[in-house]
Amino acid sequence: MSWTYIEDLHRHEGESVTLKGWMYNKRDSKGLFFLILRDGTGLCQCVVNEEQVAPEAWAAAGAATQESALEVDGVVVRDERQVGGYEVQATAVRLLSPADDYPITPKEHGIEFLMNHRHLWLRSRRPWALMRLRNRVVMAIHHFFQERGFLQLDAPILTGNAVEGTTTLFALDYFGEPAYLTQSGQLYGEAMAMAFGRIYTFGPTFRAEKSKTRRHLTEFWMIEPEMAFYDLDMNMDLAEDFIVHIVQDVLQHAREELAVLGRDLAPLERVRKPFPRLTYSEAVDLLRSDATRQMLDERMEALRQEQAALEHERAENRAAYDRAKKWKKRQIDAREIEINQRIEEIEEMLRNLPQWQESARTFTWGDDFGGSDETVLTWHFDRPIIVHRYPAAVKAFYMKRDPEDDRLALGMDVLAPEGYGEIIGGGERATDLAFLEAQVREHGLPREAFEWYFDLRRYGSVPHSGFGLGLERTLTWLAGIKHLRETIPFPRMLGRLTP
Amino acid sequence: MSWTYIEDLHRHEGESVTLKGWMYNKRDSKGLFFLILRDGTGLCQCVVNEEQVAPEAWAAAGAATQESALEVDGVVVRDERQVGGYEVQATAVRLLSPADDYPITPKEHGIEFLMNHRHLWLRSRRPWALMRLRNRVVMAIHHFFQERGFLQLDAPILTGNAVEGTTTLFALDYFGEPAYLTQSGQLYGEAMAMAFGRIYTFGPTFRAEKSKTRRHLTEFWMIEPEMAFYDLDMNMDLAEDFIVHIVQDVLQHAREELAVLGRDLAPLERVRKPFPRLTYSEAVDLLRSDATRQMLDERMEALRQEQAALEHERAENRAAYDRAKKWKKRQIDAREIEINQRIEEIEEMLRNLPQWQESARTFTWGDDFGGSDETVLTWHFDRPIIVHRYPAAVKAFYMKRDPEDDRLALGMDVLAPEGYGEIIGGGERATDLAFLEAQVREHGLPREAFEWYFDLRRYGSVPHSGFGLGLERTLTWLAGIKHLRETIPFPRMLGRLTP
Repeated sequence: MSWTYIEDLHRHEGESVTLKGWMYNKRDSKGLFFLILRDGTGLCQCVVNEEQVAPEAWAAAGAATQESALEVDGVVVRDERQVGGYEVQATAVRLLSPADDYPITPKEHGIEFLMNHRHLWLRSRRPWALMRLRNRVVMAIHHFFQERGFLQLDAPILTGNAVEGTTTLFALDYFGEPAYLTQSGQLYGEAMAMAFGRIYTFGPTFRAEKSKTRRHLTEFWMIEPEMAFYDLDMNMDLAEDFIVHIVQDVLQHAREELAVLGRDLAPLERVRKPFPRLTYSEAVDLLRSDATRQMLDERMEALRQEQAALEHERAENRAAYDRAKKWKKRQIDAREIEINQRIEEIEEMLRNLPQWQESARTFTWGDDFGGSDETVLTWHFDRPIIVHRYPAAVKAFYMKRDPEDDRLALGMDVLAPEGYGEIIGGGERATDLAFLEAQVREHGLPREAFEWYFDLRRYGSVPHSGFGLGLERTLTWLAGIKHLRETIPFPRMLGRLTP
Repeated sequence: MSWTYIEDLHRHEGESVTLKGWMYNKRDSKGLFFLILRDGTGLCQCVVNEEQVAPEAWAAAGAATQESALEVDGVVVRDERQVGGYEVQATAVRLLSPADDYPITPKEHGIEFLMNHRHLWLRSRRPWALMRLRNRVVMAIHHFFQERGFLQLDAPILTGNAVEGTTTLFALDYFGEPAYLTQSGQLYGEAMAMAFGRIYTFGPTFRAEKSKTRRHLTEFWMIEPEMAFYDLDMNMDLAEDFIVHIVQDVLQHAREELAVLGRDLAPLERVRKPFPRLTYSEAVDLLRSDATRQMLDERMEALRQEQAALEHERAENRAAYDRAKKWKKRQIDAREIEINQRIEEIEEMLRNLPQWQESARTFTWGDDFGGSDETVLTWHFDRPIIVHRYPAAVKAFYMKRDPEDDRLALGMDVLAPEGYGEIIGGGERATDLAFLEAQVREHGLPREAFEWYFDLRRYGSVPHSGFGLGLERTLTWLAGIKHLRETIPFPRMLGRLTP
């Protein structure tokens, strides 16, 4: 039997349709049930009128609990006030299966509880929006590269050598040989760029890092383009076009999802070319500058004012609570949760900012940027920035040195605005075989693991560049949320391997 | 500096362009070099005329060896006889880097040698065509599902429980807990279908099988759609549309790649709806039939005739060899390699076919089909076939039973024609919680690993179906090649973990 998806209702105005889905919410009024049905593509209100349906349909509507599976026949009516812009006036309701005591209710749940129920939590509105956004971004990435003639070619997940040391690798037994889960497809990407000109890999990567921060997952997806004959400037141009393309695509095609997430669109709308480009040294100067000290002072002052205003509002609400009507009490309760959350965030920021300010002021040339340094840097700008020409010592051994200053590597990072930090890391690759051999020796790496990689410099070596974009970090920024773990269907973190 | 890719030359007829790439082949004639350049997007002949270029350019062309990196400036001339349809009349040639003694030459190399040099072998014509085909098929898969409103959502690679036993799983240590690499994203796909309606996963999957056949990889890519409210028939319809879509896309957009692979297009052009659908019982009857015995007798007879003809041709060639001119000798040598390969294949087939015939004749209802049974079955048809309603005992525990015959599971496989066997396996999923709990008990599986999966039946269980397509098996068939290992950039097999 065929049916109609909620996202297609606009093509069936005035027609009779069948919807199949799950009950998301229900209100009743005398002789009426208002069922909000969800089918994965959207939500739709189905109005069931006791006088217009058979007794079985009325009973089915009455028996439907949250997440019960339902079929509803009815007529599609345009109604701007309704979620999705349409409602269905039911002519029949069939209860397919019940859902007694569905564990996720509209009340507050702790994050651990929700993560333990991730298989069900995905049905809620916010994960729905995030996963739809993820799909949209994945396809925007494919479109970007395919339109430019790149091939998607996969690097292997299982690798035979721990090329960058074993500390952050997951190891396994491969029929008696040691094997490791890939941390990056880059070296393979380089081989494929020499064969196909321009390629990108798109696959899962793994880091066995024992850190449990909101920017870490142990399993995450990376997109790594690699281009023969590209120098650092071309690489930065491509990264810039890439980010602009993704943001424009999302602004065009994921507005409903961004609205569900409460995303402020203004910062995304400001993401236009050109991105400010700073050398590492310029970035260090900016970090240590009076401008940074002052910017952070102003931020702290603004946060203190916001906190005072929130505390004032909370006190007023509490004072009014006892005399308030029932619906108003519910509103006050909901607002108190919001206020408390925001005050907690502000307090955390106010604890952190003085340390970040001090760390910026005393930053030493040659060190790598920490997360707070990246955040502080991006607060100076209204769009992503590119930082390039890092000290060679803090970057991977295979990066090309700056011909104008041998201390520097031709690496570049793209830092997302609004404090989200690094979403892209890349650079121009060293082409010189003797240099690479010396690097492997100096870093104490196993030479035999690199023999095949060295072949790329023995046989027709050319200038080439590439970068890696972390999918989940990018989504975290686009969605304007705090924690990476919500951007992947089933996150894997320290201590989190199920469901 | 900007340049032109060879695949874009048709837009630059009569213009001056710069090409960047690697030398694929070279001929010389008095005062002329004919360089075949490859840049990853195609091949192009560059004609260097000593009288029309500077001495440095002439010297560079002379010094260029196989896989040396080059830049060539020149004028684009249409020439149907040339590879790609265009040639470039060089005005300048710059040698970027040499490639001395490139290990892969036009002569025969053993497969182990080529696999050990996979990072370089990818530059050769056949891997080039196969990887371009792969990229094309990957995008055709995305288009198919996205156009129908499916979301791509990834199942996790690292899983906490060995839900189907540990014998074919790769295990690893996840911060002190045991973890396993996924064999299939299906159970997660089911959870996501209940949240999003229709989804597909597209990711690497792993099998620690100790078999080293041409149909096995330990790391391969699977596409697994899962659809709420789909029954078995809808599932088969979708699989059929899906295969037709992929084949049509490839026939439209990958003709050059198929030509390089020497693929006979006729069998692909016959892939049209409807696919023959056989129940397992019908397939068993067909296997055991006189028609199968006779079909295999005819195949053996045809092979014996082909072998005799080839042996005759080889003998004639050898007899003519001593008197032959040098170019003719080269031709005979090349042909002898082809003849020997084909005779080897025929001999292998003639050894196998009597066993396959016997195995088909004596096939017992209730057994699972082996590779040879699948091959024999598909030889009866000119397009893919769907076999459905298997004995429940040979299928996964979570399959729905046939309401009309409880011995049967509502599973279905799509078998590719030309003997390629299974490319899709799937079915309708059991919805009944008590049945699933009993299945888990009977199979001796750890119940706690399935608690979250059981939740999908506790809260709004609905009919649903899905299937998995093996990317590399599908490519092996589309390309018309023998071995899966050539369809993935860096294959992982028993004993093969590098490069």
